[in-house]
Amino acid sequence: MNNDSTLVSSERRGLMLVLSSPSGAGKTTIVKELIRRDPDLITSTSFTTRPQRPTEVDGEDYFFIKEQEFLRHVENHEFLEHAKVFGNYYGTPKETVFQHLKQGKDVVFDIDWQGTQQISSQARDDLVTIFILPPSIDILEARLRGRNQDSAEIVKLRMDSALSEMSHWPEYNYVVVNRSLDESVETVHSILIAERHRRKRQTQLADFVNNMRLNNHS
Amino acid sequence: MNNDSTLVSSERRGLMLVLSSPSGAGKTTIVKELIRRDPDLITSTSFTTRPQRPTEVDGEDYFFIKEQEFLRHVENHEFLEHAKVFGNYYGTPKETVFQHLKQGKDVVFDIDWQGTQQISSQARDDLVTIFILPPSIDILEARLRGRNQDSAEIVKLRMDSALSEMSHWPEYNYVVVNRSLDESVETVHSILIAERHRRKRQTQLADFVNNMRLNNHS
Repeated sequence: MNNDSTLVSSERRGLMLVLSSPSGAGKTTIVKELIRRDPDLITSTSFTTRPQRPTEVDGEDYFFIKEQEFLRHVENHEFLEHAKVFGNYYGTPKETVFQHLKQGKDVVFDIDWQGTQQISSQARDDLVTIFILPPSIDILEARLRGRNQDSAEIVKLRMDSALSEMSHWPEYNYVVVNRSLDESVETVHSILIAERHRRKRQTQLADFVNNMRLNNHS
Repeated sequence: MNNDSTLVSSERRGLMLVLSSPSGAGKTTIVKELIRRDPDLITSTSFTTRPQRPTEVDGEDYFFIKEQEFLRHVENHEFLEHAKVFGNYYGTPKETVFQHLKQGKDVVFDIDWQGTQQISSQARDDLVTIFILPPSIDILEARLRGRNQDSAEIVKLRMDSALSEMSHWPEYNYVVVNRSLDESVETVHSILIAERHRRKRQTQLADFVNNMRLNNHS
C-alpha cells in the first residue's frame, strides 16, 4: 500500500470569482479582506493605457502600455474583458489568468456587469459570479452622498448609475446582501470554499478513488 | 422612505442537503456536528416498520407504523425515498419535508446513493448533494475493521460494500475528502451557506430590489 491516493489541494483547477455591485455597496472592501484571509485567492494585474502615477509600480499595480499595443491585444483576443473608462482602456490578460487556474489558484475580479458578460462568454465552467447588494436604499444613498460636499445633481447621477448597475443582479450565480462587512466576507468566503469542492472542479477525483480500489487488499 | 426593503432570512425557500458516503467515511458524525452548529438545519423524522425499541420515542426517533400502512404510503407516492433494510421498511415523508422548506428551513438527509437517486427524481431544484470520501483506503479499512474482533471475511464484505457505495461519487454536486472532522464540518457548512445564497433560492430578491428603486427619492 502506498500514498498515491493522497489528494493535495493543487490537484484541482482554479476558478474565477467575479464580484459585482453598484458602487457604495461595499464590494471593494470585501475583496480586499477576502484576499487577506485566503492565500490561494489572488488578483490578476490588468493592462491599462492610463498614465502611470508616481506611487504606482509597473507590472504590480498595472501593466502600463500604449493605446496602440492595447488595441493589438484586443484584436488578438488576448483579453478576458476590457473596457474604456474616462478615455482610458483597461483589460484583463487571458493567458496570465489561465496560467493561475492551471496552478490551482483562484483569481478574483472586481468588475461590473459588462465585464462579467464578457468573461462569461469565454469561461463559463471556471466562473463563479456574486452580486453584492446594499442592505437598503438609505444606506446606499448615505454612502454615495459622501461628505455632503456634492450637489443634489451629482448625488442623483450616482444613484441612477448605482440603480442601473443593480438591475443586473439576476445574471449572477449568488446574491449577497451586505448588512455587515464581517458577515458578508464570511459568506463570500463560504461560496469560494464550496465552489472549490464542486465535483467537476476536482479533476483528480477519479484517479483518487481508483487508486483506493487498487490499493484495497482486504 | 420605509423599511419594506429589509430582507429577512425566512424569505427564502429551504433546501434539501443530502450527504452520502461509504460507511466508515465519517458522514454521520459530520451531520450530527452540523445540526449542532446550525439552528436552521433540521433532520426529518422517518417512517419505519421496524419494532420500536424501549429507549425510542414514537414521532421523534421514528414514526413507527405497520407494514400495511407503509405500503399504502408508498402506493400514494407519499415518500421522497424509501428502502427495505434487513426486512424492515424506512421512508422519508414528502409532505413534512416540503412544509419545512416552505418555512425556510433546510433539511439534511443521511442516505445512500439509492435514496439520493429517488429524491433527485422528485426535487431537483431544492436538492444539494455531497459525497464524503475517506482520506485513504488504509483509514477506511481501519474504521471498518473495528476492534479486530471480526473475521477476515466480514471485513472483506464490508470493504466490498464500501467500495461499491463509493463508486457513486460522480452523481453528486460536491465531494469532500474527510481528512479531519473539523475541516470537513467547516467545508460542508460552507456549502450550506453558499447554497442558501444562490440567486434562484432567494425568492424575494426581485421584490427587495424593486422596493429599493421605488424608495429612491434622490
